[in-house]
Amino acid sequence: MPPQTLSIRGTPLAGGRLPAVCAPLVARTTAELVTETRAVASKKPDLLEWRVDFFSAISDTAQVLAAAAAIRDAAAGTPILFTRRAQREGGQPIALDEPQVLAMYEAVIASGCVDLVDYEMDNDANLLARVRELARARKLPLVLSFHDFQRTPSTEQLSARFAQAQSLGADVAKVAVMPQSMDDVHRLLGATLKASESLPIPVISMAMGGLGAVSRVCGGVFGSALTFAVGAAASAPGQMPIEDVQAAIAVLRRATSG
Amino acid sequence: MPPQTLSIRGTPLAGGRLPAVCAPLVARTTAELVTETRAVASKKPDLLEWRVDFFSAISDTAQVLAAAAAIRDAAAGTPILFTRRAQREGGQPIALDEPQVLAMYEAVIASGCVDLVDYEMDNDANLLARVRELARARKLPLVLSFHDFQRTPSTEQLSARFAQAQSLGADVAKVAVMPQSMDDVHRLLGATLKASESLPIPVISMAMGGLGAVSRVCGGVFGSALTFAVGAAASAPGQMPIEDVQAAIAVLRRATSG
Repeated sequence: MPPQTLSIRGTPLAGGRLPAVCAPLVARTTAELVTETRAVASKKPDLLEWRVDFFSAISDTAQVLAAAAAIRDAAAGTPILFTRRAQREGGQPIALDEPQVLAMYEAVIASGCVDLVDYEMDNDANLLARVRELARARKLPLVLSFHDFQRTPSTEQLSARFAQAQSLGADVAKVAVMPQSMDDVHRLLGATLKASESLPIPVISMAMGGLGAVSRVCGGVFGSALTFAVGAAASAPGQMPIEDVQAAIAVLRRATSG
Repeated sequence: MPPQTLSIRGTPLAGGRLPAVCAPLVARTTAELVTETRAVASKKPDLLEWRVDFFSAISDTAQVLAAAAAIRDAAAGTPILFTRRAQREGGQPIALDEPQVLAMYEAVIASGCVDLVDYEMDNDANLLARVRELARARKLPLVLSFHDFQRTPSTEQLSARFAQAQSLGADVAKVAVMPQSMDDVHRLLGATLKASESLPIPVISMAMGGLGAVSRVCGGVFGSALTFAVGAAASAPGQMPIEDVQAAIAVLRRATSG
């Protein structure tokens, strides 16, 4: 089957073409987030990802909700992916335990200020089921993600990660790895292609770092529904300026539609 | 080992970065070739390929030599790859038999008006040996090429083609295929990566057509030393405008050097 694209309330991102472009928001205060969101949204990403683990007041749910509302307003209609990246998968250290994280997710999902939610597929199964239930109740697509900042798992393991996300009830499967060689990058693209052709949900992948840069530009051609690019500040190694990613994707689109 | 780059008389093309960009010249008359060469050279390709099988006076060696000299002059220093593409590998029909083609190669090589020579690796072994001898005598790098305009051979066959070129004495191995699926494109890139890491000569590859466009932008990252792009007119399906290819390659270079 053809690769699936990401949709928000029935509207496909990026006009249904792969990949959509997502820019992270990583400011530490609400005021800085507003400034960052305005600056980044003006660069026309298809999606914004609020990385709440960078937010200094993450332990105060009222402040998190105020920030979510402020971002929603500053985003001027650009949809928002809400993500607390776990420290063991490359996120910032936070003072919350996992049940407290769940309470924050519940409040933010209920606020109506975000459009998609990301949660790591390796989290406790009961907590994961709860996030899935919260997202479904509000009809927010759930991204179940896996990140390896050290290496690239075997091709079989990569395929298993995409399938695992789907079997856990994900609406979108995301796999991010650190390549040690171009062969690792090639395998990641191959596993992405295979998953995008065999799974009924959109898949997202990237090889991080300089070696993996090609995956951020060309991943869409191999079935990745989303690529992350820098609007104001990077959230992971190897992210490229959004203007560069948009330009290179436009080149590939012109070539493949011609 | 790291992938090899193309060099002309000891000077690496594109500053030794992969891929260099080659624009074809396909005009039918000397006057039109001069106009085409000037227009294309102004777009700063690293290399020009004169596809002599498009030249209407190909049967008249004196006219071929005059055209070669005119192109050399109009190229304003851009190096020139000389290619008669055989009809069975996607070239134009010509009135010369293969020994006559060899005589033309000999005259053009002796003229000093070209810098590299391409010849199909599937040509008669004795004729191929003669082209190799002529090129070596003038110290011109020899590209031995293989093209499949219908399909993409198996991964093993692709690897064998790169190795065959090297075993036949090529200074550069070129493999161009037509993909029927993105998996074909992925396999071509994988075989290119492997060949570029294992062979002592530069390798060139591309997947043609719209499906293969990604290989013309990203092939260099997977070890291809050269990509073909359109200056004035295309010589094969899927070639993209040189401005687009240069822009996308620049994006990837910025990302990988950062």
